[in-house]
Parts: sequence; structure tokens; C-alpha cells
Amino acid sequence: MEIFSYEILKNLSCQVFLAMGCPSEHAQLAADALVAADLRGIDSHGVARLSGYVRLWEAGRINPTPNIEVVYETPSTATIDGDAGLGLVVASKAMEIAIEKAKIAGTGWVAVRNSNHFGIAGYHTLKAVKQDMIGIAMTNASPLVAPTFAVERMLGTNPIAVAIPALHQPPFVADFATTTAANGKLEILQRKNQDAPLGWIQDKKGQPSSNPNELKQGGALLPLGSDREHGSHKGYCLGAVVDIFSAVFSGANYGPWAPPFVSFLPLPPDPVGLGLGHFLGAMRIDAFRPAHEFKANMDRWISRFRATKPAEGYEKVLIPGDPERAMEIERLENGIPLVASVVADLRALAERMGVESI
Amino acid sequence: MEIFSYEILKNLSCQVFLAMGCPSEHAQLAADALVAADLRGIDSHGVARLSGYVRLWEAGRINPTPNIEVVYETPSTATIDGDAGLGLVVASKAMEIAIEKAKIAGTGWVAVRNSNHFGIAGYHTLKAVKQDMIGIAMTNASPLVAPTFAVERMLGTNPIAVAIPALHQPPFVADFATTTAANGKLEILQRKNQDAPLGWIQDKKGQPSSNPNELKQGGALLPLGSDREHGSHKGYCLGAVVDIFSAVFSGANYGPWAPPFVSFLPLPPDPVGLGLGHFLGAMRIDAFRPAHEFKANMDRWISRFRATKPAEGYEKVLIPGDPERAMEIERLENGIPLVASVVADLRALAERMGVESI
Repeated sequence: MEIFSYEILKNLSCQVFLAMGCPSEHAQLAADALVAADLRGIDSHGVARLSGYVRLWEAGRINPTPNIEVVYETPSTATIDGDAGLGLVVASKAMEIAIEKAKIAGTGWVAVRNSNHFGIAGYHTLKAVKQDMIGIAMTNASPLVAPTFAVERMLGTNPIAVAIPALHQPPFVADFATTTAANGKLEILQRKNQDAPLGWIQDKKGQPSSNPNELKQGGALLPLGSDREHGSHKGYCLGAVVDIFSAVFSGANYGPWAPPFVSFLPLPPDPVGLGLGHFLGAMRIDAFRPAHEFKANMDRWISRFRATKPAEGYEKVLIPGDPERAMEIERLENGIPLVASVVADLRALAERMGVESI
Repeated sequence: MEIFSYEILKNLSCQVFLAMGCPSEHAQLAADALVAADLRGIDSHGVARLSGYVRLWEAGRINPTPNIEVVYETPSTATIDGDAGLGLVVASKAMEIAIEKAKIAGTGWVAVRNSNHFGIAGYHTLKAVKQDMIGIAMTNASPLVAPTFAVERMLGTNPIAVAIPALHQPPFVADFATTTAANGKLEILQRKNQDAPLGWIQDKKGQPSSNPNELKQGGALLPLGSDREHGSHKGYCLGAVVDIFSAVFSGANYGPWAPPFVSFLPLPPDPVGLGLGHFLGAMRIDAFRPAHEFKANMDRWISRFRATKPAEGYEKVLIPGDPERAMEIERLENGIPLVASVVADLRALAERMGVESI
């Protein structure tokens, strides 16, 4: 484990994106979005993925100089084509458009096609919060999840994020995969050679499994709820809604046609759309009531929930966004720890791309 | 168990609402919304609740002649005050406003305060589908659910529904409580004197329980995910977002201040808003791409998911809305079965309200 400052990791990421041929503004946007994941403690989505983006670019699946374009719109909506650009950049631009729409129409909703992995959903929603808006972000992803009663992998971990501004309290930020556990948690268990709890994964026959390597043997992640008796059909519904909003609205690939993030897997044959899809929304809080009233009530909501009586053995009840915010403060001050394999990967990448190493 | 036709139950409901003093249009709307639950197989939300609405009216908590009013708006949003009217009616009106907004702005979003129980969320979303729009409906509800790590009941079962039109395929209709199991399922187990699966409820100390009567002894329902290891923090996030969208946007009571549906429980002291809150949305599918393209892709989405390889022991994978639609066809043809206690309750109610009995 080595520790690096936020600035150093952001600078490395920016240099790598520049070396891919991204324009300076895009490289900065992408680096900011990527390293936000490390800052917030979602290590699986941060610099650990930088070389993955580079490999996709090398495979011709990422266009460093995309012409990101609105292809359809109404006063409160737009559909944009990401021109195979970095999802980190395309989704940032899409959220800007949603915010501009909301300024005039009250709300703004942008469906995105022809994109790829957009980093952590929460990052994009926080842009709306800065404008006194609720931010919403979702994306579809490579199929790893079996619907209830199924053995086939049909949906991605399809995350949803919702960020809501308050007054003196920090914002409410929910950001979660619509599966019982995110794939990053399995990767941690694989490294530690530990079993997964039952309810996270099934084997290729649809039987419960605790083997964290099950996905390599035809198994699948389970929708939030784990099994039918515990509501997995609800997690399946959520994942399906994310897939449809992200990809059927926009004209991206949906369900099992969603392209994989890794360059070594082939693209599914007979695509039904262009690239991956996202869906971003911005809702002005003063589109429903005066902003100060909304924010004062959010403060009251947050303080009341923070004061909820905890169960024995627990110190307190959390507000969505609390753990990530605490991590961000801690890591801005003390740096971001990276495991040795990620450090080695980044150093090799820096050398290969001809940029200053960390 | 006795069986009644849809028309007979709808007529009884309509007569009861008329006897409460509702105008004819409202009584018809309310009856249509209420009996839709019985038709779709969600027996807990249908005529079994009719006498509950009457008791709330008798307690002065439902206004049969509300002045439902837009109190705030932008091109794509509105906030309406339901004037303590029947939620069944207020939410129907709110969805009509969302649809009208969407016709012009692309999407329409309506927050509702000063309302009460609105029946099944899915009913309201299907109105949007008839207009080639995606319908969204959510509501907060009496606090029965403990957040992750908590013993206090802070949230309702806070359902979310999303209905999405297709071309030749029937619409996709997701409609679910954001808890592991809806309260209606516990009521069934109570009647049968059976245990609940672990993961649905906890006792007053926050320990897992299989006692379906636990809520009467200070226990709580659990958010979708059941426990932290299986993602209950995600179910808590979902329930919280529904609470905030329904009640903080609109100025209704949120969290533990949400008024109970039953007339024998007192209203929480020091209310933070007016009545219960809902949130309804309508999104024109042709606000993102031509309608025929969207619908053709939804048909493809649905057919592909319907063809998903099922696990051993299962016949097929379901599309959200399939079971309720099958039930509706069956019950329109063969009638709606009611348990003896509900029949007796309805007959007593008819006599008390001076309307023709069933």
C-alpha cells in the first residue's frame, strides 16, 4: 500500500488523457470525474480503471476527440450522441445540458447514447446540487446480473444516484448499484481469497453460491433483494428501469447487448444501438416551492433522521452520502492509499504513455 | 370466500364515496382507482380499505369536496394542494396535470401535499402510458420501516411505480414497495398464523424476527435488502428519496410525521407539513426519440427479456406487470374473490352508509 495526494493522481490521470489525444478541457473533466471516485472511497471506479480506459482507446472503442451533439430535444429534454467519447466527459456535458434546461423549464432530462463507462454516478449529480437542483444520474453497464428466476446475465449493475441540496446540512447523496453487492466488492474478496455472503451471487445453474470467482464460471450477480422471497424482483425492476431510461430512450445498446468495459471481450454481435447509455436529470428545487423553504425542510429531514434511535451495537444511523463525504475529507488531508498492483499498473501506464510517473 | 364481479364492487365503492358527499366525478374516479387494486390482485389496497377511507372521513381527516389547487409551477413542474381530499382523486388529478405539462414541455412533474392514501401507484402510471408517455408515481406513507442500523420507524413502505409503453407488447409496469415485503403480505401471514421469512421484519431491539405480529410490539419492517450485508442501505436510500420527493418538494409531512392511514391512531404532534405527499411524473417518449422507434425497441427489449433462459425449476422469466395483467384478465372474466371478513365489512358499511349492498 502506497499513499498519493489527490493532486498527484489527478495530474497523472489528466496527463494520460492528454496523451490519448483528448483536448485539454476534456482531459481535465475526465480526470476530475475519475479521481472523485478515489476521493470518495469507491476505489474500484477510480485510477484503478485508468489503464482500462486506455486499452479501450487502443482498441479503437474510445474516441478522444468526440463531437458531442444534441440530436433531439424539447424544452425539458434532450438526447445526446456521445460520439464514442469518454463517458466521464460525455456524462459531464450531458449534466450541464440538463442543468441549462432546468433553469428555463424547471427540470431537465438528458438521455445519452454512444458513450461508455461514466465513472461514479454520484459525481455527476453533485454538479446539480451546486446550482440548487436535485441531481439524478444512472447508466447501464456490461451484463453481469441475472433477472429473478433466470440463469442468463441480462443487466449490468446499473447504478442510480440522487443528490439533494440542504441548507446548513451537507447534501443527501444516494449512489448505489441496483444489485445486492457491487462487482468491486467481489474483486476485494477475490484478492483476499474469502467467501462472499450467500445472496450476492448464483452459479451457472442459478443455485446460491459463495464463490467470489463464480462470474468467471458462468455465474451471475443477483439483483438487490437476493432472491424472490426477499424482493429480488424489485431489484430486477430497478435495474430494468435504469437500462430502459439509459438506453431505450437514447438509442444505445440495452440488456445483453450492452458493450463490455474491458477491451479483451468482443462487442456483442448485432448491436441494437450505439455504445452504452446514460440518463441524467436536474430538478430545480424552486420549481416546486421557494428554495429556502425546501432547504430548511431538508435540514430538518436530515437532522431528524440523524437522530434516529440506533439498534444495539450501532453508534448511529447514517444519512446517504455521509461515509463518502467523511472519506473525501480524510483523503484530501492524508492522501489516497493505493494497493501495490494498482501502483505498478499506473507506473507502467505512465511509462507506456510517455508521461511523468507517480 | 365469495366472488363478486368488478362492476358490482366498483358500483358499491362509487355509491359509498357518493354517500360521503363526494361529487359524482370524484366518486367515479376514486372507485375506478380503488377497485383497480382488486382487479390487479393487490387485494390489500382495494375494497378491503373502503371502510378505512370512510372512517377517516368520519374522523374529519378526509374532505369529500376538496378544492384541489396548483400552488406553484414552472413549464415542467407543479405543486398541488389536495385540500385533504381522497388521495385516489387527488393523485389522479395530479397525473392529469403532469400529462398536460409533458405535452408542452416534454416532461411533467407534480408534487402533491395535503393528500392521503392514493391506492396502488401503478394505477396512476397507466394513465400516462395511454398517452404514449412513461408514467412515474410514488407516495410516502405511515412510518413502519426502520432505516439500516435503526430501531425507530421512520419511513413508510413508500412505493414506486414506473410504467413504460411498448408497441405490440403490453406495457412494462413496475410497482413495488421499497421494503423487502409489503405490509399486506404480513397481514396474510397473521391471518394464517404462519411465520414470516427472516429478513422481512425486526423486533423492537432491531433483532431479526419471524413473528408477523412484531409491528404491534414495537418492531419494524425492513428496507429492501433486509440487512446491511445484503444492501438494506440501498432500500433505505430508495424509501428516503420517495419521502423527500413526495413530501419535502410539496410541503407535506415527511418521515415519522407522515400521518397514519388508520383513524384510531392520533396524528403525530407538531406536523412539519400538510397531510401525506405524492410525486407523479409523465415523460413523453417522443421527447427523446421518435415514438415508433422507442416502441419498437421496447418490444425488442421485452421479447429478449421474456426469452431469458430460466433457472432449473422455473418456467420463465417475468416482465414487470405480467402477473398483474394476467390477474386482471382472469378477474374481469371470473370475478374477484373476497375473504369472508372483507365481505362482512363491506355489507355492514353499505348498511351504515345507506347504499345498496353486495
